[in-house]
Amino acid sequence: MNYADRLEEAVRRAANPCLVGLDPHPANLPEEFAVVRDPAAPRAAKAQAAADFLCAILEVCAGKVPAVKPQSAFFEIYGADGALAWERVVATARRAGLIVIGDVKRGDIDTTAKAYAHAFLEGSGPADRAHLCDAITINPYLGSDSILPFLDSCKQAGAGIYVLVRTSNKDSKLIQDHGTPPVYERVADSVVAWGKELVGARGLSSVGAVVGATHPAELTALRTRMPTTPFLIPGYGAQGAGAADIAGGFLRGGRGALVNSSRGILFASKQPAYRELHWKDAAARAIDAMALEINAAVGFES
Amino acid sequence: MNYADRLEEAVRRAANPCLVGLDPHPANLPEEFAVVRDPAAPRAAKAQAAADFLCAILEVCAGKVPAVKPQSAFFEIYGADGALAWERVVATARRAGLIVIGDVKRGDIDTTAKAYAHAFLEGSGPADRAHLCDAITINPYLGSDSILPFLDSCKQAGAGIYVLVRTSNKDSKLIQDHGTPPVYERVADSVVAWGKELVGARGLSSVGAVVGATHPAELTALRTRMPTTPFLIPGYGAQGAGAADIAGGFLRGGRGALVNSSRGILFASKQPAYRELHWKDAAARAIDAMALEINAAVGFES
Repeated sequence: MNYADRLEEAVRRAANPCLVGLDPHPANLPEEFAVVRDPAAPRAAKAQAAADFLCAILEVCAGKVPAVKPQSAFFEIYGADGALAWERVVATARRAGLIVIGDVKRGDIDTTAKAYAHAFLEGSGPADRAHLCDAITINPYLGSDSILPFLDSCKQAGAGIYVLVRTSNKDSKLIQDHGTPPVYERVADSVVAWGKELVGARGLSSVGAVVGATHPAELTALRTRMPTTPFLIPGYGAQGAGAADIAGGFLRGGRGALVNSSRGILFASKQPAYRELHWKDAAARAIDAMALEINAAVGFES
Repeated sequence: MNYADRLEEAVRRAANPCLVGLDPHPANLPEEFAVVRDPAAPRAAKAQAAADFLCAILEVCAGKVPAVKPQSAFFEIYGADGALAWERVVATARRAGLIVIGDVKRGDIDTTAKAYAHAFLEGSGPADRAHLCDAITINPYLGSDSILPFLDSCKQAGAGIYVLVRTSNKDSKLIQDHGTPPVYERVADSVVAWGKELVGARGLSSVGAVVGATHPAELTALRTRMPTTPFLIPGYGAQGAGAADIAGGFLRGGRGALVNSSRGILFASKQPAYRELHWKDAAARAIDAMALEINAAVGFES
């Protein structure tokens, strides 16, 4: 089934467009997982603790949000042990009915891109599917031929991709703003073209775009420019953008976009409002508060 | 010790600037490793076969070339088993005295970039160093703040990075040629600036650039534009560029650049000239032939 249709169905079921970013930054993990901060601890123990924490977070997410976004880097710090942890977290999320968007930002030429597509979206054999992502993020710097192998995954495996168009960090301007029109508009137009044949029954494509919430005017302009493209919007919460900033990224009825929050959910118990709660309850409350705020701002219709 | 100085020393010792790309594409592995092509084989067996093949190639490389470049994607297809294989290959290469450039093309914002720097260049603890790379490739689409954490690794851990400037694939123009001046020149100037404080005793920086051999005129122009930047030049051999095409990427005496060949070395036994040889002998002969050709074209002085 087309990725965009599956995602829309998941958003409808959860009744909100919130995406929980799974970035288990060692510095922020609750005290019971402090082994991740012990320089002398074996790497396997750290990776396992990070996965244990995230699997507990996934119990909170199940039924509450449509999708989660594990961040590859925070697993790769544990090498092969981290790769095992990644697979466990991804498989647990999928079993819980959550859409999994692997935040891997890969990008490379032809056969190499195909290998990444196999690694994350297609699997290397029939017994090798449990840990696959529903979608991944892709870096477009290498151009169209680096994207094509992933479009095959979208067509053949019902996968999705989110191409980096406009990122939420401060120095994104170096490349993304360069030229007239700027690079990010050129990439935006390419994303629409790449996704043309992958528009599903609900009018959205399996080829999405990452568009930061920290540039609200551009977000609105890109929404108009890319009417059938699902957006993944980072930057909400810890990175500074509020619900009003992200509204322009949505289509009518609160459709067509996911808003990511990572630290704001995972480490909610560090916020004054939730300090009295267990970290798991704090995460649940933070998700509820985020969903309420986002749904109101984007006019979500269930 | 500064990465650029270590690399220059390795090039001097091997007496050639050839880089062997470790891309164990399953379709091309010799028959004794055919398990990688068996859809029913366990993933661990495939990953082990790929690593066995590469470790045999490393025996050929040791002493003959200064550096090798494992390609992350062809390990990631085997998931956690592939990550174990990656660590074994990297550790074996380093024990053999080879400089290891991890072709990972990572790129992400602040704390995430820092996590990648830990994963590949710094390690997450003292017992976790054997499989670290000497340098990695980096994608600059996210801008300066995504590069800074890697500069810290260069300063503190003596690591190196190669930023994608101009890639060797056909459609690289989409982003890299956009604007006046084109994006790739803007990135080139940034690479020089990022590397300024990391210039070693031999006049080269630890912040390098990936510049494809398939654009010879640009390669020469970028060499002038980036006088202290070590180049990593892909595109030679299987991708179509010859020795004459890469000469412009070198400084006087054949210094300041590495030329990569992957398929042309690993799968040399598929070439008519080497068909009678065992694949390991074919790889050795292909390295010798490449070194001879490159050294003559770039005026290498040992």
